[in-house]
Amino acid sequence: MVLPEKIPPRPGYEITIKYIYDRALTIFPYMEIVYRTSQGKGKYTFSDASFRVESLANALASLGVGGLDRVATLDWNTHWHYETYFAVPMMGAVLHPVNIRLAPNEIAYIMNNAEDKVVIVHSDFIKLAEAVLPHVKSVESVIIVDADSVPDKVGGKKAYHYEDLIKEHSGRYDWPEVDEDRPAAMGYTSGTTGLPKGAYHSHKMIVVHAMSGALQLATLGKRKVTAEDTLLHIVPMFHVYAWGLPYIATMLGVKQVFPGRLDPKVLLDLIAEERVTMTAGVPTILYMLLAHPESQNYDLSGLLFVNGGQALPRGLAELARKRGIEVMVGYGMTETAPILTLATVPPKFRDRWDDLSLTTGWPIPLVELRVVNPETMEPVPKDGKTMGEIVVRAPWITPEYYKDVEKTEKAWRGGWFHTGDIAVWFEEGYVLIVDRDKDVIKSGGEWISSVRLESAISQHPGVAQVAVIGVKHEKWQERPVAIIVPKSGWENKITTEEITRFLTENFVEKGEIPKWWLPDRVVVVDDLPKTSVGKINKRALREKFKDLLISG
Amino acid sequence: MVLPEKIPPRPGYEITIKYIYDRALTIFPYMEIVYRTSQGKGKYTFSDASFRVESLANALASLGVGGLDRVATLDWNTHWHYETYFAVPMMGAVLHPVNIRLAPNEIAYIMNNAEDKVVIVHSDFIKLAEAVLPHVKSVESVIIVDADSVPDKVGGKKAYHYEDLIKEHSGRYDWPEVDEDRPAAMGYTSGTTGLPKGAYHSHKMIVVHAMSGALQLATLGKRKVTAEDTLLHIVPMFHVYAWGLPYIATMLGVKQVFPGRLDPKVLLDLIAEERVTMTAGVPTILYMLLAHPESQNYDLSGLLFVNGGQALPRGLAELARKRGIEVMVGYGMTETAPILTLATVPPKFRDRWDDLSLTTGWPIPLVELRVVNPETMEPVPKDGKTMGEIVVRAPWITPEYYKDVEKTEKAWRGGWFHTGDIAVWFEEGYVLIVDRDKDVIKSGGEWISSVRLESAISQHPGVAQVAVIGVKHEKWQERPVAIIVPKSGWENKITTEEITRFLTENFVEKGEIPKWWLPDRVVVVDDLPKTSVGKINKRALREKFKDLLISG
Repeated sequence: MVLPEKIPPRPGYEITIKYIYDRALTIFPYMEIVYRTSQGKGKYTFSDASFRVESLANALASLGVGGLDRVATLDWNTHWHYETYFAVPMMGAVLHPVNIRLAPNEIAYIMNNAEDKVVIVHSDFIKLAEAVLPHVKSVESVIIVDADSVPDKVGGKKAYHYEDLIKEHSGRYDWPEVDEDRPAAMGYTSGTTGLPKGAYHSHKMIVVHAMSGALQLATLGKRKVTAEDTLLHIVPMFHVYAWGLPYIATMLGVKQVFPGRLDPKVLLDLIAEERVTMTAGVPTILYMLLAHPESQNYDLSGLLFVNGGQALPRGLAELARKRGIEVMVGYGMTETAPILTLATVPPKFRDRWDDLSLTTGWPIPLVELRVVNPETMEPVPKDGKTMGEIVVRAPWITPEYYKDVEKTEKAWRGGWFHTGDIAVWFEEGYVLIVDRDKDVIKSGGEWISSVRLESAISQHPGVAQVAVIGVKHEKWQERPVAIIVPKSGWENKITTEEITRFLTENFVEKGEIPKWWLPDRVVVVDDLPKTSVGKINKRALREKFKDLLISG
Repeated sequence: MVLPEKIPPRPGYEITIKYIYDRALTIFPYMEIVYRTSQGKGKYTFSDASFRVESLANALASLGVGGLDRVATLDWNTHWHYETYFAVPMMGAVLHPVNIRLAPNEIAYIMNNAEDKVVIVHSDFIKLAEAVLPHVKSVESVIIVDADSVPDKVGGKKAYHYEDLIKEHSGRYDWPEVDEDRPAAMGYTSGTTGLPKGAYHSHKMIVVHAMSGALQLATLGKRKVTAEDTLLHIVPMFHVYAWGLPYIATMLGVKQVFPGRLDPKVLLDLIAEERVTMTAGVPTILYMLLAHPESQNYDLSGLLFVNGGQALPRGLAELARKRGIEVMVGYGMTETAPILTLATVPPKFRDRWDDLSLTTGWPIPLVELRVVNPETMEPVPKDGKTMGEIVVRAPWITPEYYKDVEKTEKAWRGGWFHTGDIAVWFEEGYVLIVDRDKDVIKSGGEWISSVRLESAISQHPGVAQVAVIGVKHEKWQERPVAIIVPKSGWENKITTEEITRFLTENFVEKGEIPKWWLPDRVVVVDDLPKTSVGKINKRALREKFKDLLISG
């Protein structure tokens, strides 16, 4: 008898989502869940939710869901969506939240690629489903939530009413013992370049990711997350499993608030009424909360806002801090389930909290992160200056792009997952993303960080939003151009000269930005185009302004 | 192309101890580690430690350590031990800390059973090693720590000096990519019943256990653990991997203090000098800290003491609280790596903090725990009254008793690991151990909890320590007897009558303890025998007093 080389987990002792569910049911059955639907506000406990989750599993089984069948969702941040997050993977099937902001043909592409069998649709998206589903052969059934009544068919598929279904199939469900390495959920990249790519994650990946993210939020940084928090779900649940927050919150036993459709006034009301202490989202949503005409009537002090999806401009961070909001940056992507880093500043650097919590942050437990020269894979110096690509390893990174061998080989070359993010890193252990590799401006053989320029320009008192893009240039290959939405009253004062003066006085003369980075032109616009997940769509801007410098 | 049933981890993306090490090295290289040796106090950083860890791996490789070879330790809580905790499993070998308080023949049994190849020995245990090693054929080399000089041979095996070895083999080590399911460490039960049984744990088990324990400590309870804590390692590092605390601390980046040999005065000094905020241990050590003649000269307020290994008597808890110490109970065992529960009271019950933090607590994330009728495996009612056995599942429970099929089958019968602990559980989600199954007193077909009686008696002002045991009785099968160490000055006042009066007035008349539980006899002694891990040795007491009621 010898020690075995491998200790496989005993059946029933594996790392699965059911453990999060069972523990919550045992020790936090009273956990409050508040939700807003078209009927107004409601609330229930996790114990109530669990009965609905198990009834939903019965209902899905009655519709033939079994094996690794994919169950898609087209839904806001609702308690129905939350119930689906547990029922589907715990049955052994695969949850597939679909981004409702994509074009119908993109959604059809994604659902065909995933081969979804059942789709749960919010009544707001019935029209969208009507456009998409005729083109998705695999879908057999549609389940409608938040509706008074339901048509017989949607997009040619048999339609059911969620509430009727779970009433009809009400009862406890005998969850199978699923393997920890079994796929639990899948999501697609937002596809700003080319077709969306599918990522999928096992039970173990999702659970260990949730534990790791929670651990960093709970132990580091100025404002630590605990079971005493109340979480408002602003990150769309169709966007990388809402960054894992529904699982994190359920594991910690924190009160959760599901706002339904994202409306700034509704969010402000919920923050006040439910004493929300924590939320997360893209900078756009933070801006909407602060810029809403009635925003000043709400006390936002003490709220923790974890920013992700896009760099947080310093100007916006300062606006939030003036309102007493603690802002902190996180970083990740669909492939990485998503969290890789959080700007939770360790105690040693507490005197630099305000600056460092706006960097890309420190890797969370089990993430191995390097900033490398993408050609040689050699780490660049930790000098805060030398740019390189972020490559990572973590136990929860998708094993591949679904059905795409070529892109898989490219992204995992050299044994590391290539994020496509350009960053610098520091002795203190944190990284700072300076650009996406496709957004970085290549000027005369050197790189200019569009993100750093945006952060600087955002501090101008007349700038509401800004995007800096590389525009084709005969001599320098590319040169930076700043596209700016001015604050009200500043429309005529934001000019190339004014921005050049502001940057020169505040950044160039202090040595913070090289002179040759100064944008060649400033363009004033009313609004900036956004991607389906609320990020500024730089691809659209580059297309629109591609001839600006050459023709001008 | 279809979705795979299982997603095996990519090589290098697995959940291994190396991730804890690499992250600490990247983001907490400055982490302070203080240690006390025979030369006095020293300190270094994690970055310094890492160079020694890698040199140690080189040295062990030079001694032929490879594959799944076991490297044993006979050591106090030293920085040498800490270095071994990383070097051995990260090489792919298996760490085996041996309990130095066992008898030489037990240690020889354990080391033969584990087939240790190398053993690292503190100079205090050279004599012990001389007695043991001639009987352990598998051991080839001995490495001595904390010594001025080293003999050529110890117990007939070639001996080396740790410091010389790592100087000779100094340099970085190229860690292999080990499988997450590979055994990383092993430990033996303390064997109060029969021979010690071997348990072993994989990298994934140890890492996920550390994450889960840390998460509960960080998010629940009155006094939450964060990266700002300073941890004093009191739990012996030969005792179930020091309850995972060296890994937890390194993952969180907290300052650690290794006291060497456990001396109450040294511990008090270290607490004061290093501003220790957190420690853990058995009740005996807490008692030693409080009862030391100079204890009152030390400010212990703000210290968190996590109690484990044995129930915390309420009287001792109250003594600690008077000194401003936050006490909280944890529960686990060798087989479970070890943490299963922590009495981290959720916010909902914050008005009952003082009581509930002395219960056995709430399961930590990923632990599935039931209190069942051991015959039927049916859960007993959550009424706080009905006793049953605790059975558990968790991803980090040892897969078997090493080389012992029979005991393995018995302990895992019905698919659950049987802890042998008798408990009640409550609607609020917590459990309360009332006894070990072998310590519970069987009286007239009913069970009497020795632990509850001890907790009550410990509140008598004249009682220093107490153990309640079942003693053979002609009519009732067993009856309780209280063995008491009185406080100084109370020697003649602690009698059967006095304890009966005290229990009747304070517990029986309030309905907290049934009248028929009252001990038949009180025996006054000078000291209580302890097991090798510092628990009161009830087996020895039962043997000593087995005829007390029959002959008396």
